[in-house]
Amino acid sequence: MSAALPHSVGPVVVIGAGLVGTSIGLALRTSGEQVHLVDRSASHAVVAAGLGAGVVDRAEPDEVRLVVVATPPDAIARTVLESLHRYRSAVVTDVGSVKGRILDELRASGADLSRYVGGHPMAGSQHAGPLTAVAELFVDRTWVVSAGPDNQPDDVARVRRMAELCGAQVVAMPAEQHDEAVAQVSHLPQLMSTLTAGHLRQVPGDHLRLAGQGIRDVTRIAASDPQLWRQIISANAEAIRHELEGVRADLDELFAVLDDPQALEEFMARGRSGARLLPGKHGAHPADWVAVVIEIPDTPGALGRLFHDIGAEGVNVEDLSIEHDATREVGYLSVEVSPPFAERLRTAMKAKGWALRA
Amino acid sequence: MSAALPHSVGPVVVIGAGLVGTSIGLALRTSGEQVHLVDRSASHAVVAAGLGAGVVDRAEPDEVRLVVVATPPDAIARTVLESLHRYRSAVVTDVGSVKGRILDELRASGADLSRYVGGHPMAGSQHAGPLTAVAELFVDRTWVVSAGPDNQPDDVARVRRMAELCGAQVVAMPAEQHDEAVAQVSHLPQLMSTLTAGHLRQVPGDHLRLAGQGIRDVTRIAASDPQLWRQIISANAEAIRHELEGVRADLDELFAVLDDPQALEEFMARGRSGARLLPGKHGAHPADWVAVVIEIPDTPGALGRLFHDIGAEGVNVEDLSIEHDATREVGYLSVEVSPPFAERLRTAMKAKGWALRA
Repeated sequence: MSAALPHSVGPVVVIGAGLVGTSIGLALRTSGEQVHLVDRSASHAVVAAGLGAGVVDRAEPDEVRLVVVATPPDAIARTVLESLHRYRSAVVTDVGSVKGRILDELRASGADLSRYVGGHPMAGSQHAGPLTAVAELFVDRTWVVSAGPDNQPDDVARVRRMAELCGAQVVAMPAEQHDEAVAQVSHLPQLMSTLTAGHLRQVPGDHLRLAGQGIRDVTRIAASDPQLWRQIISANAEAIRHELEGVRADLDELFAVLDDPQALEEFMARGRSGARLLPGKHGAHPADWVAVVIEIPDTPGALGRLFHDIGAEGVNVEDLSIEHDATREVGYLSVEVSPPFAERLRTAMKAKGWALRA
Repeated sequence: MSAALPHSVGPVVVIGAGLVGTSIGLALRTSGEQVHLVDRSASHAVVAAGLGAGVVDRAEPDEVRLVVVATPPDAIARTVLESLHRYRSAVVTDVGSVKGRILDELRASGADLSRYVGGHPMAGSQHAGPLTAVAELFVDRTWVVSAGPDNQPDDVARVRRMAELCGAQVVAMPAEQHDEAVAQVSHLPQLMSTLTAGHLRQVPGDHLRLAGQGIRDVTRIAASDPQLWRQIISANAEAIRHELEGVRADLDELFAVLDDPQALEEFMARGRSGARLLPGKHGAHPADWVAVVIEIPDTPGALGRLFHDIGAEGVNVEDLSIEHDATREVGYLSVEVSPPFAERLRTAMKAKGWALRA
């Protein structure tokens, strides 16, 4: 076997035809990979195959090169172990949200871990089952690959390549660090959403009519499967407890600043700073945006027409502001967009006759 | 003046040409209302007028019939008071997020409150300023109108009519009850989002790369203006403290159940129940959805084509499931949608040749 990235990663066996497993099958089939689907529930596998995620025929065990374990969390370690025994020439990976617990269970079983490479695609939804799967689930999402000291470079490369074929951005991270990170950016937010939503059970029905978009966003992921989340949180309880202790301290501080306007405003500002640390759309730091500055003619309705023309381009406008040039007595509209949109917007606005500031 | 709903609610003066005030102006102009815009910052008023939200000419005070105070929260009571003095024939309303504090301040000033009718449209965004305004901001949103015992029915009707012209659903609710309700469904979620986002400041940068959509949703509103939220929270601190105490008790319980799988799963399930109490899309109770049941032909790729055809209709699919009829050996896809979409989907799918189950 060559050390170069293989052109094909398969034949692949995906075990667990839920949202994630089926989506992986769909994505790999798009790249022409051979995918075999296995699920404890035959109808799940049949539905996933019907969607085009692979076939339900049994694979020839010795020909399989890659096994992706996409079962519920509690079944992962056992399924990885079985797969290492059955598929003797394959590297076995998984999609579990917590990596340390799986390694602990595999080590306790005395398994040879050289062919196991843990993985975790940071994608999903509050929905479940093969019918909610889409080939694009992982596009531009992070996919953590946690290689261990016993792994062969070829095996790690095969798992990375599989994630890349799904459109994901691969991040190498040791299991322990991964588990701390997901406690912070995934498990804690889940619990905060659950706390917020659970509190609604105390709220009179006519008060719920005042609910706007904000609380819907905050509580969206609270609607996720309680059984799945019980498994995830139980497997990472120690790291989560540490994060929750930080939140409890912040909550105590919030009680203390409720009647102190200046301290309260600082508290709210820290939340805004935190939200802006997140990469991507709403968290993007303004410094990451590019301003396209368009002259506003001094004619009636000019601003309305300008908005119409910007809207017609379909670019995501991150921020807007009006600027004035006192000497020229002219106004400018500054439209902030993410870098990929800037040139497209400039070209389109010029073509429509608007004057741009260089 | 007749007790019937007036055809026109104006001339209207909107004070404060920010997101909410400008959006009100835009919506009322769509209905042909005469709108005068006032803002401490002349450029804000000019921009709002440029967008089509009204005119910046001064209104003749005695001709004004309705004043909408849409300033920042801390300035509302003072501006209502000034408006009651200046516009002697007008009913004065506001859009403040907290109603009790405004009433307290107005009463303390000795004002005659018979022409003041408090209001609160449950709409906004994490953005601010006239440039983010849209005429549709209030469509199908709740707009609370808090009438008091001294108000004239005609005046209350005028404020309600204005909200309806903006497309909102009017809910009558006393000030104190309103403030308790928004503490529960708006201010508490804001603080939970702020707590979650603030905690990210302790998180190493490479861990943030693992952030998915969940934490982005939970922390979106944490990016809102800290100064605005300091004003809102300070004005409703007592009711908010009560809700926060409930959350602190739930958090203590979470610590206690972290290592008890069954109790933890019940805790997560309570969050899901809470999320489902919210009216509207993700919170809609399944009982509110209508199932459109389509027969799945036993031909290769049928499910894929079926999905394509459903997707092309652009309806919001709330849930999906596969059903089997063992005697006929046929499968059905059950597509759950909100009632307004059901007939459209049925008609479209029939037209495309799919068989529907009655």
